[in-house]
Amino acid sequence: MSIVVVGSVAYDGVETPHGKVERMLGGSCTYIALSASYFSPVKIVGVVGDDFAQEDTDLLASRGVDLAGLERTPGKTFFWKGVYSADMNDRETLVTDLNVFEHFDPKLPDAYKDAEYLFLGNIQPTLQRNVRAQMTKPRITGGDTMNLWINIAREELLQTLKGWDFLLINDGEARLLSGENNLRKAARVIQEMGPNTVVIKRGEYGAMLFRGDDYFIVPGYLLEEVFDPTGAGDCFAGGFNGYLAQQGIDLGQGHIDRRELSRAVIYGSVMGSFCCERFGVDRFRTLTRAEIDGRFQEFKKFTDF
Amino acid sequence: MSIVVVGSVAYDGVETPHGKVERMLGGSCTYIALSASYFSPVKIVGVVGDDFAQEDTDLLASRGVDLAGLERTPGKTFFWKGVYSADMNDRETLVTDLNVFEHFDPKLPDAYKDAEYLFLGNIQPTLQRNVRAQMTKPRITGGDTMNLWINIAREELLQTLKGWDFLLINDGEARLLSGENNLRKAARVIQEMGPNTVVIKRGEYGAMLFRGDDYFIVPGYLLEEVFDPTGAGDCFAGGFNGYLAQQGIDLGQGHIDRRELSRAVIYGSVMGSFCCERFGVDRFRTLTRAEIDGRFQEFKKFTDF
Repeated sequence: MSIVVVGSVAYDGVETPHGKVERMLGGSCTYIALSASYFSPVKIVGVVGDDFAQEDTDLLASRGVDLAGLERTPGKTFFWKGVYSADMNDRETLVTDLNVFEHFDPKLPDAYKDAEYLFLGNIQPTLQRNVRAQMTKPRITGGDTMNLWINIAREELLQTLKGWDFLLINDGEARLLSGENNLRKAARVIQEMGPNTVVIKRGEYGAMLFRGDDYFIVPGYLLEEVFDPTGAGDCFAGGFNGYLAQQGIDLGQGHIDRRELSRAVIYGSVMGSFCCERFGVDRFRTLTRAEIDGRFQEFKKFTDF
Repeated sequence: MSIVVVGSVAYDGVETPHGKVERMLGGSCTYIALSASYFSPVKIVGVVGDDFAQEDTDLLASRGVDLAGLERTPGKTFFWKGVYSADMNDRETLVTDLNVFEHFDPKLPDAYKDAEYLFLGNIQPTLQRNVRAQMTKPRITGGDTMNLWINIAREELLQTLKGWDFLLINDGEARLLSGENNLRKAARVIQEMGPNTVVIKRGEYGAMLFRGDDYFIVPGYLLEEVFDPTGAGDCFAGGFNGYLAQQGIDLGQGHIDRRELSRAVIYGSVMGSFCCERFGVDRFRTLTRAEIDGRFQEFKKFTDF
């Protein structure tokens, strides 16, 4: 089944201990779409400027991503630049030029409106709600958010979350949103805000999924080299959403097989790990579904007891 | 099969966000022994002063711990006092009074010398080697160390490690000892120092085991409340060693079932998690083997996919 993905399409400048790239394709929507495309058809909603390169459009198209909702407007594409710490657990933002993204007002092409799955990447919560409202009746709505919106748009975010089946955020954001330091308690508080399922990403330490009183935890994949962690969380979202849509999993209040959800978390972890192996989206230029399934089996092996 | 455990027997003063205890039973040997006692017979080697309370001897004896190697000398028992940060991921040492521990020169009772398993808790590396030399021929020798010895007694430590089958340390120590930030690489460097098996503890994030090119990773148990993390790493060591000895697992260079080693890591994790539920050793006053096996099954459930 197909997934509509909304978020930023951008150019990034990134410096890590392994090197420096002045300008390369990036943005949450880009990473989510590329990652999810290995599992299910993806339709993106985003905005780029007239500087957006044909080769970048081509990369997305080569993965079968539907670009009907990628608006092109006069001006420059969103640009972000950052530098990572030596252990890559921290990063400093050097430049954030919103450019055409500043007035992004996502509009869904008619052909998108009856898609079964909707994933709202990290944009202003009211815009996320507006996108949701344009959909006919998605079976599953999930999304991401960030510290900025939790701090400056908390009420809009809480309104928006009410309509979601799942929220996918990192541990620091889960703590900030819930006011609870303990992640089990944090998940419970967030579940009361609307989403029946909460997925918490912990970077190199892995991820957790909470649904009702049940939960699943997986450690992170042990890469020997992390070249560039940019986009890893979005690639996790892509793998997670992609697997849900591939399997046609419904997150309604009824009973579902929790192991299927756990497998979605594993595929998310797999995609996040591949993302880190090269700069930017480079790993997706050669990655195959066979490699993805191979790494899924590696997860089986190194967690088995 | 029985395990000889060497380390500190101490009194601790601990302050956490949940409360404060001025003086209670502690020390690495104490925690390791109490934890391992749920799996296998334990014989301890340590030293206490003449202030060591009968009730503390009684607690160890009630768990069947052999106290023939617990030397009692004039003076005071080792005292440590510390305070934990709000999230309990950091602690500050306020007092370290070595007292009778300063001149600890471990001597094994004859009845200990033919034990099959030896675990050298965190003491000066040369003392660890002296203990090993007193044993007839243990099937498995494992041990722990700390930043202090890695920094001030590196050569002695490297000599000592040559005789070990496994090293069990935390992630920061593994990085310091190996000079590698990446834990997979760190484990490989440490394996070349002697131990064929390396277990790395990651606190709330769980643990990893490396043996040859194979490895196992488990996330940490998600406690709702951590009352006091003091001793959790030692309780991990107790569960890990205890299970190895219970199953009679040999860590020689030949083939062994890696899943058995993984189960030892799970039992280590289980024991570490119980330790945090009360102040000091209090959880071990009531803990049962059935509770331990119940939590082992919980690990199965929340990691299954």
